[in-house]
Amino acid sequence: MQRVELVNNELSFSRMVQGYWRLTDWNMHAQDIVRFVEQGLELGITTTDHADVYGAFTQEALFGQALKLAPGLRDKIEVVSKCGILFPCDKQPDVRVVHYNNDTDYIVAAAERSLKELAVEYLDVLLIHRPDPLMDADAVAEAFIRLRAAGKVKHFGVSNFSASKFALLQSRLDFPLVTNQLEISAVHTDYLFDGNLDFLQQHSVKPMAWSCLGGGGVFHDFQYKALRDCAGAIAEESGASLDQILMAFVLSIPGQIMPIIGSGNIDRVRTQAASLSISLTRQQWFSLLEAARGYKVP
Amino acid sequence: MQRVELVNNELSFSRMVQGYWRLTDWNMHAQDIVRFVEQGLELGITTTDHADVYGAFTQEALFGQALKLAPGLRDKIEVVSKCGILFPCDKQPDVRVVHYNNDTDYIVAAAERSLKELAVEYLDVLLIHRPDPLMDADAVAEAFIRLRAAGKVKHFGVSNFSASKFALLQSRLDFPLVTNQLEISAVHTDYLFDGNLDFLQQHSVKPMAWSCLGGGGVFHDFQYKALRDCAGAIAEESGASLDQILMAFVLSIPGQIMPIIGSGNIDRVRTQAASLSISLTRQQWFSLLEAARGYKVP
Amino acid sequence: MQRVELVNNELSFSRMVQGYWRLTDWNMHAQDIVRFVEQGLELGITTTDHADVYGAFTQEALFGQALKLAPGLRDKIEVVSKCGILFPCDKQPDVRVVHYNNDTDYIVAAAERSLKELAVEYLDVLLIHRPDPLMDADAVAEAFIRLRAAGKVKHFGVSNFSASKFALLQSRLDFPLVTNQLEISAVHTDYLFDGNLDFLQQHSVKPMAWSCLGGGGVFHDFQYKALRDCAGAIAEESGASLDQILMAFVLSIPGQIMPIIGSGNIDRVRTQAASLSISLTRQQWFSLLEAARGYKVP
Repeated sequence: MQRVELVNNELSFSRMVQGYWRLTDWNMHAQDIVRFVEQGLELGITTTDHADVYGAFTQEALFGQALKLAPGLRDKIEVVSKCGILFPCDKQPDVRVVHYNNDTDYIVAAAERSLKELAVEYLDVLLIHRPDPLMDADAVAEAFIRLRAAGKVKHFGVSNFSASKFALLQSRLDFPLVTNQLEISAVHTDYLFDGNLDFLQQHSVKPMAWSCLGGGGVFHDFQYKALRDCAGAIAEESGASLDQILMAFVLSIPGQIMPIIGSGNIDRVRTQAASLSISLTRQQWFSLLEAARGYKVP
Repeated sequence: MQRVELVNNELSFSRMVQGYWRLTDWNMHAQDIVRFVEQGLELGITTTDHADVYGAFTQEALFGQALKLAPGLRDKIEVVSKCGILFPCDKQPDVRVVHYNNDTDYIVAAAERSLKELAVEYLDVLLIHRPDPLMDADAVAEAFIRLRAAGKVKHFGVSNFSASKFALLQSRLDFPLVTNQLEISAVHTDYLFDGNLDFLQQHSVKPMAWSCLGGGGVFHDFQYKALRDCAGAIAEESGASLDQILMAFVLSIPGQIMPIIGSGNIDRVRTQAASLSISLTRQQWFSLLEAARGYKVP
Repeated sequence: MQRVELVNNELSFSRMVQGYWRLTDWNMHAQDIVRFVEQGLELGITTTDHADVYGAFTQEALFGQALKLAPGLRDKIEVVSKCGILFPCDKQPDVRVVHYNNDTDYIVAAAERSLKELAVEYLDVLLIHRPDPLMDADAVAEAFIRLRAAGKVKHFGVSNFSASKFALLQSRLDFPLVTNQLEISAVHTDYLFDGNLDFLQQHSVKPMAWSCLGGGGVFHDFQYKALRDCAGAIAEESGASLDQILMAFVLSIPGQIMPIIGSGNIDRVRTQAASLSISLTRQQWFSLLEAARGYKVP
């Protein structure tokens, strides 16, 4: 498995990342999770993606049970988590409105809660989950600096940020934001032309990518028929599967994008990880883009 | 009243600014204006916002009559004016088309005319009123440098500029543009996501905000019913008025935004200035955003 | 004819550039082309614009025949060409999909092919023809560095690039990108407000402009009636032609934009070049903008 250097000699991720967004839907006990992590490690997938908000604030604790059961795993993986989203759910009885909070104290407390839930002594990376119109960059920087000094979080990044918000937050830090986790797939292609990936490539920031298969709609929705047919034809030519072609579309974009695999089925994980061995030609890639958008490039 | 430092040790504004856009509609004589300014000063409002084009090029002279009547006022206030818009009206008999002019000589002459009309020896700040597709940044810089050297204008800024146009003009100056005056309200929320405020926060430029109550439509138009109901409920919870809640929405955005009060009624001015004591919770702020846009944040 | 300095003491273009996009439609033999180039030179037009892809990959060779016939011409002109677009046509039998290729080896080979076809020993400027979502900036930079070291291309630029993609590629080069060739006309006015021209003006990059007459639709399409009427009235006032007014619209925009003349008719070329002597007033320019967009500036 390729590795991606996020900070020279300090932090690297496996090119494919295992996402635990839906962990609480997988009906796994702690022992099952341990086995799943180990099977990922056999594939070379060391990086694990979490967020406090996943599973309505219950996902981290479930993963943490696995780490308690098999403490040796911690040193073999990178743990990425996120904070800043709040929404009405059992664990947040005082929340009535979906909103963000990126105040200093809130971030520090959220990270500390993640440490406890995940049963780890530090996070490898903490991400601000959503661009927040109320983000005071100095307040976020203050939280990062405190968490870093306390050894509770090694590195920091963002998720779903625009280039302007990334530049704003970076301007307040004397260490680099190490990633921006973005929605990138053949289904939604605006991000290819909005300048955000240009900005990240310019500054050598390696993006993580979520929903690389487009949320699954591509496999059956009528609106994606052209894309599905095109990807299907390429899959047949290449002896690959449809989801491998969709994943290869993302992997072909420059900048060492790191796709997050959303599945909890080790066979699907294995299939998606194997996308790394598929090399789309430029003609194949542009035929996918054309099918996705319904028009040729000029 | 809070004060906002625009240039360290050189220029500060009162957090709330008194706008004179509609002065010519207020049926005030010079003595009434003097009284109005004094009542504002009692509230701590020292900053006054003007433009050559207001009142079809008659607003500045009317305010100037007040300053002639009470010359002692000048040193107690900051005078901000703007130039660059031309449109057909009695005072501009040669103008047939709404257009902009930001040539060097035009800006210098416009600023000198503002000095004369306002009966002041200098402007605290001169703003370019609108982003002009024909703006030659060197020509504008030349005008600013001349006016500054002559002591006629102390500081310069812009109004309604994009980040790219701000950066362009700033690149030609070795002194900072001190503000960008933008339309910011709960009614129009695009500016929260277009990167302009990110850019200003990054460079510590403090925005002024116009039309913070959304032009008044929010008080009766059907399209704003959800926002009005939401703001009304928060107003009731907070023992505040609807316009205070709308103003607090703007004040909550990071970056020390300075709202311009558009009213000439001292009671409404007092009410709006008192918005500074209202602290919206994040949940209240996001519920206003959700009501304004009709959908939750992701 | 005005000249525009693209790189101090190293590269200048004639303000008006002769485009050869449609050369293969002009029914010209090599001798006709020689004569046409010479007539352009008499007008002061020294800069010639080409692309490998023009005429379905046949335009450069046709121009090259003229240079072989009159080798003395080469030193009197600047030769600009472009690469990176591929599409299905006789010369590209393996291409099934319109796509871009900006790999290092592809760019180097394309430039070498352009040299051969055009029968020149070097290009004055090579442009990347289209912003490519698969552009690896390091790969493009590597191609540029190789071509430059070999003396095969003197300078480099881009075409149709956004500001973010321009900044990305520039970040990998220690010599300046000398131009960005953009579609600029009274017919399409988005570019006046999207920040790209601001970015170029800020960095003193001089744009070339294609399709300045809006592709000809303005002369007869119903949708452009208001613009046509407005331009026609100004033409009459100025004793100029409609296309001169449209060209003057582009020339009025700051930043020393260099329009590319698309015509192969020397009389129309002469007419368009003479647009340089037309000076639109700001009111005329804004009345054209208003007619083009259907609404006044605010």
